[in-house]
Amino acid sequence: MAPTRDAIRTTVENYVRSVAKGTVDDVLALYAPGATVEDPVGTPVRTTEAELREFYGVIEPMTQTGEVLELKIAENNAAFLFRLVTHLGEQDLVMEVVDVMTFDEEARISSMKAYWSQEDMKTVPAS
Amino acid sequence: MAPTRDAIRTTVENYVRSVAKGTVDDVLALYAPGATVEDPVGTPVRTTEAELREFYGVIEPMTQTGEVLELKIAENNAAFLFRLVTHLGEQDLVMEVVDVMTFDEEARISSMKAYWSQEDMKTVPAS
Repeated sequence: MAPTRDAIRTTVENYVRSVAKGTVDDVLALYAPGATVEDPVGTPVRTTEAELREFYGVIEPMTQTGEVLELKIAENNAAFLFRLVTHLGEQDLVMEVVDVMTFDEEARISSMKAYWSQEDMKTVPAS
Repeated sequence: MAPTRDAIRTTVENYVRSVAKGTVDDVLALYAPGATVEDPVGTPVRTTEAELREFYGVIEPMTQTGEVLELKIAENNAAFLFRLVTHLGEQDLVMEVVDVMTFDEEARISSMKAYWSQEDMKTVPAS
């Protein structure tokens, strides 16, 4: 059975919040067993919990804010635009990314692909 | 060899313009031979030129305007948010959709998946 739209919406919101402000465990709790991560698209797919833990571990110590800007849901799939701001003292690093996810019956993330490149990152004076 | 970012950007802009204002032939000229279309995601994948021709033929006669709102490129892949407004006399039907595409070496579309559902469509008084 497909997860409800509200359940998918909640997972996406929790994901962006956890990536910005949570721990690696917070993020990994949103993933289904055996989930895959391709970020950015075109790089090798991460397939093990150890690889996911390493990937999200890099950003855990950063001071960030995150916001979902647009979310489109189709059956058990979602594509969403979000903004992640990393606060670096007098500068903010602003990234806007489109993530595409599939979800299992419990609205856990079974795959994630992130669409972005260098040109989607910019530094601005801290707000 | 991967297409350039500029070539991908041009194809995406041409695609949205052709869907809004062009003919079926204009749209199909942007697709690579053997391309697939899943719109919306979760529905059967269209795999033949006849199926693509039928799909885009439905919207050819409509009076529409289209606009790319956000475009993210990663290697030979793109995810973009666009708005398509169908003018229906005194009302406009406004759709916002995220499309994900892959491209061949000539920046022709080799696959398209569209993320949207009923809640991404709304009617407003004609502007």
